[in-house]
Amino acid sequence: MTPKIIRTIAELREEIAARKSAMTGNPTVGFVPTMGYLHDGHASLLRQSSSDNGLTVLSIFVNPTQFGPGEDLDKYPRDEQRDLNVAARSGADLVFIPSVEEMYPRRRATSVTVSDVTERLCGASRPGHFDGVALVVTKLFNIVQPDRAYFGMKDAQQIAVIATMVRDLNIPVEIVPCPIVREQDGLALSSRNVYLAPEERKQALVLSQSLSRVTEWIRGGMTPQQTIQRLQEEIRRAPLADIDYVDVLKYPDLVPAEADRPLSEADGRLLIAVAVRFGKTRLIDNRLINPAEVGADICFAK
Amino acid sequence: MTPKIIRTIAELREEIAARKSAMTGNPTVGFVPTMGYLHDGHASLLRQSSSDNGLTVLSIFVNPTQFGPGEDLDKYPRDEQRDLNVAARSGADLVFIPSVEEMYPRRRATSVTVSDVTERLCGASRPGHFDGVALVVTKLFNIVQPDRAYFGMKDAQQIAVIATMVRDLNIPVEIVPCPIVREQDGLALSSRNVYLAPEERKQALVLSQSLSRVTEWIRGGMTPQQTIQRLQEEIRRAPLADIDYVDVLKYPDLVPAEADRPLSEADGRLLIAVAVRFGKTRLIDNRLINPAEVGADICFAK
Repeated sequence: MTPKIIRTIAELREEIAARKSAMTGNPTVGFVPTMGYLHDGHASLLRQSSSDNGLTVLSIFVNPTQFGPGEDLDKYPRDEQRDLNVAARSGADLVFIPSVEEMYPRRRATSVTVSDVTERLCGASRPGHFDGVALVVTKLFNIVQPDRAYFGMKDAQQIAVIATMVRDLNIPVEIVPCPIVREQDGLALSSRNVYLAPEERKQALVLSQSLSRVTEWIRGGMTPQQTIQRLQEEIRRAPLADIDYVDVLKYPDLVPAEADRPLSEADGRLLIAVAVRFGKTRLIDNRLINPAEVGADICFAK
Repeated sequence: MTPKIIRTIAELREEIAARKSAMTGNPTVGFVPTMGYLHDGHASLLRQSSSDNGLTVLSIFVNPTQFGPGEDLDKYPRDEQRDLNVAARSGADLVFIPSVEEMYPRRRATSVTVSDVTERLCGASRPGHFDGVALVVTKLFNIVQPDRAYFGMKDAQQIAVIATMVRDLNIPVEIVPCPIVREQDGLALSSRNVYLAPEERKQALVLSQSLSRVTEWIRGGMTPQQTIQRLQEEIRRAPLADIDYVDVLKYPDLVPAEADRPLSEADGRLLIAVAVRFGKTRLIDNRLINPAEVGADICFAK
């Protein structure tokens, strides 16, 4: 079914209230916030939401406050018609596509800041990025008032940031992390993959390929530092790869694992995360691992 | 009717949902957040909420994050039984009295900050105060999910801060400002009045008395600076008065009125606000004035 396109906050609130009251029982609302240029990863979030909830709201908003100076805000890929086709076949009921003026009609005096989990990884590489994410997600949650919100684990730190904010501010929403969706050859789906030149695209496989070997290294007794070094070596075999970060952190707290202890003996889950530039395109990828179950389970659940 | 006392977030959410679904129509929820030690000002908020809404929730929480070092957190007056009596006779249906651990169970990583309207007045005198207010109010709004929230105009800057936050974050609540309630002799009601020694209490009348003369001075053509000076002179006639601030600002933006222009010619509303210490007790008071209607109207509405 073709989802309804809505461009204003007031109309979205009205439409959600009307749809809910028209449905029997007390239907839950699932929410998939995106920046558009939807791929199968987004589609998987929509399908999950559609299966879990009576009403699924998709938002498409390239949020300027989460881009830094010199980042790719202006050239971020946009294709509304393509997005609506993905939305229609993936179970979205309402598609919210606000303008920048609708979301930010005046000078902003209010900021939402999450510390600790933002100290490393993309929080360190992209100053202010997660402030922008926290602000827009808070606004969207207040506009949609969803029961559940769906996020892809490719942005594992984003999920940790949002889960922290939801917990600290008592936001009445369940955050549902969903598995990374990959191309057949292993490349994690990203709207930014469209930027990659053919040779960059080919070399970008080094991310998923090296990450897939981490469980084997952990089983072999590597410490965090050894794992990071080995990953860096593997990634540098791709001549076009320009490493932004490679890190091994406890998840979801995103603090370093104990330096001298083999990762196989770590308590709880570990996030092995990388950010690498290929030309002007910055890609991220990660694996979430439970060392107690290495080789058996890669766990994605909260 | 005796209101129900609730001490946990989970129980409050359940109780509100149960009460709403037990009522016919779609009853609105009114919310009165307080730090307890309730006086007739709080009672007036509860009565207004009770008249406007199907369900009225009162919260009593002495929020540690809005007190600075050396402020009166530890000795802030508390009397639960007295508060419950006021709540019962003023129309509260539910009284939420969480512990500090219930509201802040772990290290906080998330902060909510409002700039601009916090630059002057209590924002300048009490660094961090409005960060604490913004945080706890955001949490309480997310817990109670009220349709309307009631605040007294004695804390005019607090209302401006909360209204700014609600607007910027799209929080789905209507902020209802309510008039200052005063003793018969003019002293603005405050939980902190209980700290005042008899002579301090007597001299504290200088606040309401000098503020009540402002409309006359404005009619006489005074500029902001002249008004501030005159207020300072009047207040200093009380020997125990130790002025923290006296200011004249546009409301609700809380930016200075044009310095050289008589206030009688100012556009929009003006807040004349004072903070004065008597011994260890810091009192605030204010008048909101529309110069276009000076002498006729003192307006309290948003």
